[in-house]
Amino acid sequence: MITVHGFSPSGNCHKVRLLLEQLGRDYRWIETDSARGATRSPAYLAKNPNGKVPMLELDDGRVLVESNAILCWLAEGTAFLPHDPWARAQALSWMFFEQYSHETYIAVARFISGWTPIDSPRRADLPRLRERGHQALAVMERHLAQHPWFTGDAYGIADIALFAYTGVAPHGGIDLAGYPAIGDWLERVRRTPRFVAMPDPDPNAAALIAASS
Amino acid sequence: MITVHGFSPSGNCHKVRLLLEQLGRDYRWIETDSARGATRSPAYLAKNPNGKVPMLELDDGRVLVESNAILCWLAEGTAFLPHDPWARAQALSWMFFEQYSHETYIAVARFISGWTPIDSPRRADLPRLRERGHQALAVMERHLAQHPWFTGDAYGIADIALFAYTGVAPHGGIDLAGYPAIGDWLERVRRTPRFVAMPDPDPNAAALIAASS
Repeated sequence: MITVHGFSPSGNCHKVRLLLEQLGRDYRWIETDSARGATRSPAYLAKNPNGKVPMLELDDGRVLVESNAILCWLAEGTAFLPHDPWARAQALSWMFFEQYSHETYIAVARFISGWTPIDSPRRADLPRLRERGHQALAVMERHLAQHPWFTGDAYGIADIALFAYTGVAPHGGIDLAGYPAIGDWLERVRRTPRFVAMPDPDPNAAALIAASS
Repeated sequence: MITVHGFSPSGNCHKVRLLLEQLGRDYRWIETDSARGATRSPAYLAKNPNGKVPMLELDDGRVLVESNAILCWLAEGTAFLPHDPWARAQALSWMFFEQYSHETYIAVARFISGWTPIDSPRRADLPRLRERGHQALAVMERHLAQHPWFTGDAYGIADIALFAYTGVAPHGGIDLAGYPAIGDWLERVRRTPRFVAMPDPDPNAAALIAASS
């Protein structure tokens, strides 16, 4: 049995849940509220010194961290990761793009909007984060104008990785109206078999999001 | 023949050069000065809309971007990337760690120190970047206290990815003296066959680095 230590509102964690659901795998989910310090306990840091979720744990105690590395491991040998080396490398390329040029702006803008106090000094970063988030979306839009997916010829883990925070970009004040190909792709992802949506923000986060836009 | 579009002082680009040299592969290197806008030309953006180096190009015009995805593709089927899925996933995990929790602080502190004007407002970020860089180094130190490498049981692409900016962290004002296991690992990497060092900063960058520390 696989155990996932994850925070449900986190897109990085939802990636893992979505793939496990779509693979039909059994797993146990341990809710781990990283916004309230649950990844900073000595017990957690003993397993993951970098203090982040998600973390995948096997029954023998071995752990694997970094959401996109977890996706790769789970997808190995399945249709969610191409076997062809070039197609596989392109999927990985999009997953590194996601972590470096996309998550760092779109996910962070969302987190600041919904999960920090309304007077947090971090809110001063929002305009720059939104601008950079739009740059990432423009790169995606350009790809999607010519290709249906980010994982070779079919839906797979690069799509799951990019879907996670793109679908909720408006929570961070990043409007998707100007990206029709992204909008179509989001709908295609939502129609894949066994798709599960990320939970809506709790009332407190929803109120902060509404006040931030 | 492989063509690499790269900026020699960039650690992300040096990763690709180091692996190609260690694999003994023939390649062509096109120097691309990203600090002076060479990745923002229309011709470059037509190949890589994200406007970054390195970019690998094949003779038929296909391109692959993201340094760590390039490493994975080049290493496929070689001793630089484990075949065992769990070991491979752990290597990928370190490579995602590198791009998200390491490069973003250690490489950025170095870039600001050496490649922005001495009165750049970005220099106000240096204390925070250095603090987060030390957090990444502490995670690496802890791993290296128990394991000789980051790529399974042997030297490989996760080591190359992490070596690139760790070895030059002092350029960004991040002292490595407190990390003896990292120091030993850096020396082990430098003694691997066909190792090539990153070029020293040019005199202008060296003067800025000296003035920043």
